[in-house]
Amino acid sequence: MTGLEIALGNETIIDFERSEQSKALEMSTLHVNLGPRGYDIVMGAKFADGFGRFAASVLPGRSAFLVSDRNLFAQEHPDRLLASLQAAGFRIGSLELVPGEERKSLESLSVVYDKLADFGADRQTVVIAMGGGVVGDLAGFAAATFNRGLPWIMVPTTLLAMIDSSVGGKVGINHPAGKNLIGAFHQPRAVWIDLEYLSTLGRREFRSGLAEAVKYGMILDEDLFCWLEQNHLNIAKPSHADLEHLVHRCCQIKATIVKRDELDQTGLRAVLNYGHTFAQAFERVAGYGVLLHGEAVAMGMDCAARAAQQLGWIGSDVVQRQRMLLHLLDLPTTYAAEWPLPDLLEAMRHDKKSESGQFRLVLPRRIGHMETNVQVSESLIRQVLSSHTLRAEA
Amino acid sequence: MTGLEIALGNETIIDFERSEQSKALEMSTLHVNLGPRGYDIVMGAKFADGFGRFAASVLPGRSAFLVSDRNLFAQEHPDRLLASLQAAGFRIGSLELVPGEERKSLESLSVVYDKLADFGADRQTVVIAMGGGVVGDLAGFAAATFNRGLPWIMVPTTLLAMIDSSVGGKVGINHPAGKNLIGAFHQPRAVWIDLEYLSTLGRREFRSGLAEAVKYGMILDEDLFCWLEQNHLNIAKPSHADLEHLVHRCCQIKATIVKRDELDQTGLRAVLNYGHTFAQAFERVAGYGVLLHGEAVAMGMDCAARAAQQLGWIGSDVVQRQRMLLHLLDLPTTYAAEWPLPDLLEAMRHDKKSESGQFRLVLPRRIGHMETNVQVSESLIRQVLSSHTLRAEA
Repeated sequence: MTGLEIALGNETIIDFERSEQSKALEMSTLHVNLGPRGYDIVMGAKFADGFGRFAASVLPGRSAFLVSDRNLFAQEHPDRLLASLQAAGFRIGSLELVPGEERKSLESLSVVYDKLADFGADRQTVVIAMGGGVVGDLAGFAAATFNRGLPWIMVPTTLLAMIDSSVGGKVGINHPAGKNLIGAFHQPRAVWIDLEYLSTLGRREFRSGLAEAVKYGMILDEDLFCWLEQNHLNIAKPSHADLEHLVHRCCQIKATIVKRDELDQTGLRAVLNYGHTFAQAFERVAGYGVLLHGEAVAMGMDCAARAAQQLGWIGSDVVQRQRMLLHLLDLPTTYAAEWPLPDLLEAMRHDKKSESGQFRLVLPRRIGHMETNVQVSESLIRQVLSSHTLRAEA
Repeated sequence: MTGLEIALGNETIIDFERSEQSKALEMSTLHVNLGPRGYDIVMGAKFADGFGRFAASVLPGRSAFLVSDRNLFAQEHPDRLLASLQAAGFRIGSLELVPGEERKSLESLSVVYDKLADFGADRQTVVIAMGGGVVGDLAGFAAATFNRGLPWIMVPTTLLAMIDSSVGGKVGINHPAGKNLIGAFHQPRAVWIDLEYLSTLGRREFRSGLAEAVKYGMILDEDLFCWLEQNHLNIAKPSHADLEHLVHRCCQIKATIVKRDELDQTGLRAVLNYGHTFAQAFERVAGYGVLLHGEAVAMGMDCAARAAQQLGWIGSDVVQRQRMLLHLLDLPTTYAAEWPLPDLLEAMRHDKKSESGQFRLVLPRRIGHMETNVQVSESLIRQVLSSHTLRAEA
C-alpha cells in the first residue's frame, strides 16, 4: 500500500505520505443493493479533489448544500469539498453547526430548513452531510423532509459513522422522550469515505468505532472477529490497507442485513442491536456525553454475552474471548460501580427495543450467530448487571 | 338509496334519515393500488360504529391516537370513533387542535410529537387524522416521522379532503419560505370516508371541494365533467348516491395518476396542478385565508383555459363551458380588480412549479386531456391576467 503510517495518539492517528502520482484517485467501491434506492460507497484517501466530479456523476442537478460542524470547518475539510463541487459546476452553499448531540433537535432542524430555503434549494439540490453521526442524522433528516425529499450524499468523518451510518438510511433527531424518536428512512445517493479524515480523529473516538466492528464480527462474521484478534496491534497503528479492509467489511456486513430488512420490519435488522439495550441504559444512566457510544456498546456486549452464558447458550470461553478482544482494543467491559441497579433496569425497560416493558435481547449462540427477540427474565438481567462491576472476572 | 336528503344551506347540507336496519354497515371500497403501500378507501354514511372493527382488521397493533380539531370535537365526531376503537379493544388517546392553516407549523408538529410520546406510542400505534387538509397534512407528517414511521388512517371530513388528500400520500407542514415546504410521502393504511360529515360542512366549503371535482373532469374524465353539468342542480342538494358517485370517481381518477407517479418524479402527477399556479398566486396575493382553496382553483382554471385559448389549443366554446359549469356550481371565475398585476406575476414566479423563474403551466388540449410543463411567455400571462377581472367576458 501507499506508505500510510498510523500513530494512534491523541493528536493524529494516520500520517499520509503519498507520492504525487498516487494522489490520482484511487478508490474502491461497494454497492449497497437496495434496488431503486441502491447506492455506492466509495472509499479512498486524500481524494477530495475528485468529489465534485463524482457528485456530478451521480446527481441530475448542479446545486449542493453542505452541512458540517465547526471542528471540521476549522480543518478546512468542508472547504476542499466545496471547492471541488464548484470546480465541477455546482452552485454551492454551506452551514456550520456547533458540534454535539444536542444539535439533533427540532430547533437545529429548523435552522437547516431556514438555510436550505435561503439557499433556494429545489428538488434537485443535493445535501452533503459531512461529519459524524450527529451531522449525518440531522442533515439526512432535513434532506428527507425538505420539499418532500432531497437527494443527499453522506461524507462520514469518524470510524463509527463510516461503518455504522454509511449503510441503512436511518436519519433523525432526538426528542426529550427518546433518542432518534423523530426520523425517517432516507437512503443517500452515495457515501464518500475519505480515510484521511481518520487521521484527525482522537484515539478514544477511533476505538469507540472499533467496538462496532467487534459487534459485526460477533453477529455475522467470525472471520472478521479473528482478523481483529490477529491484527489488534496493527489496528492500533492501522495502515490504509487495514482501514480499508475494516471499513469495507463492516459496511458489507451491514449492507447484507439492511438489504433484507430495509425498513426494520421483519426483525432481522434487530440483530444490529447486539449489546445495545444494555449500552443505551449505560449511556442514559451515566448521563449523555459521558460515555462514547462504542464504549457503552463494548460494556453492553459483555453483558449480553454473559446473559447468553447464563442461559447455557455459550461457554465462558466465548465470553472471555470477546472480552479479551475488547480489552486488546482498549475498550472497557465493566461499568462504574456507582450506577444504581434500579436506574439501569428502569432505563432498559424504557428502551425502544423492550416492548411492553419486557426484556428482549439479542444474544449470541456462537461467534458469528445471534438470536434476536430473546425474552429474558428480570432476575437474569439483575444477575448480569450485579456481577458486572467486578473487574476480577475479566 | 336510503332516504338521504341534502339541503345545501349554511347550516346543514345533508339530512340523514336512515332506518335502524339500514344502519348496518353499508360501505363501498376503492383500492388504491400502490403495491406494498396500497390501501383501501372505504366509503359509507353514519357508520362510525364500525370504525374500530375496521381499524382492527387493517392494523397489527391495538393502540390508536386520534388527532382532530376543536370544531369536530364540538360535534362529537372524534368521540364516536374513539368509542368504537375502544370497543374493539384499542387503547386510545387523542389531541384536539385549534383549527387553521397556521397549525401546519413546526411548533404544532412538536406538540403532536410530545403527545405521541406521552401516550407511549410505539411502532404499532396508529395515528388517526380526522379533519380537513390541515389536520391530515400535520398528523400524517407526524405519523411519517415519529419512530421513523407509524401507520395512519385518514378520516377526511371535508369534500376537498375526501377527493384530494385521500389519495397521494403527501403530508407536510408549512415553512415561512413556502407552503408544504417540509414534508414526506407517507401512504395511509386506509382512508375512512363517512359522507355524514358533509352534513355539517358549510355551503362555501362544500362548493370549494366541487372546484377540484371540476378539475378532475377537465384533466382526465369528460364523462365526469358532463355528469357535473347534468347534475348541478342535484349537487346543490346531493343525495347519498350523488356524493358517493362524486367522491368515488374523483378518488379513482387521482389514484390512476398517483399510481403512475407516486413520488412526483415523472412529471405525470403535475397534471393535478391544472389551474394551481394561478390559484396559488391568487391565494398569496389575496392573503392566506381570504379565498378558499377551491375558489382560487376555479379562478385559476379559468385563467389556464384562456391561456390555452390564446395559444389556439382550445376554442372559446371550451372556455365558456368550463366557466358555465363553475358558475352553475356557484364558484367564482374572476378575481378582485385590486390585486396588482405585478404582485400576481411575482407570486407565480415563486411557485414551486415554476422552476428557474419561468412560467410553466398545465394547459388543456380538450376537456379530459392536459399537457403539462408548457412553457409560456410572460406577455401571455399578463394578457390572461389583465382581461380576467372583466366579468363582462363571462
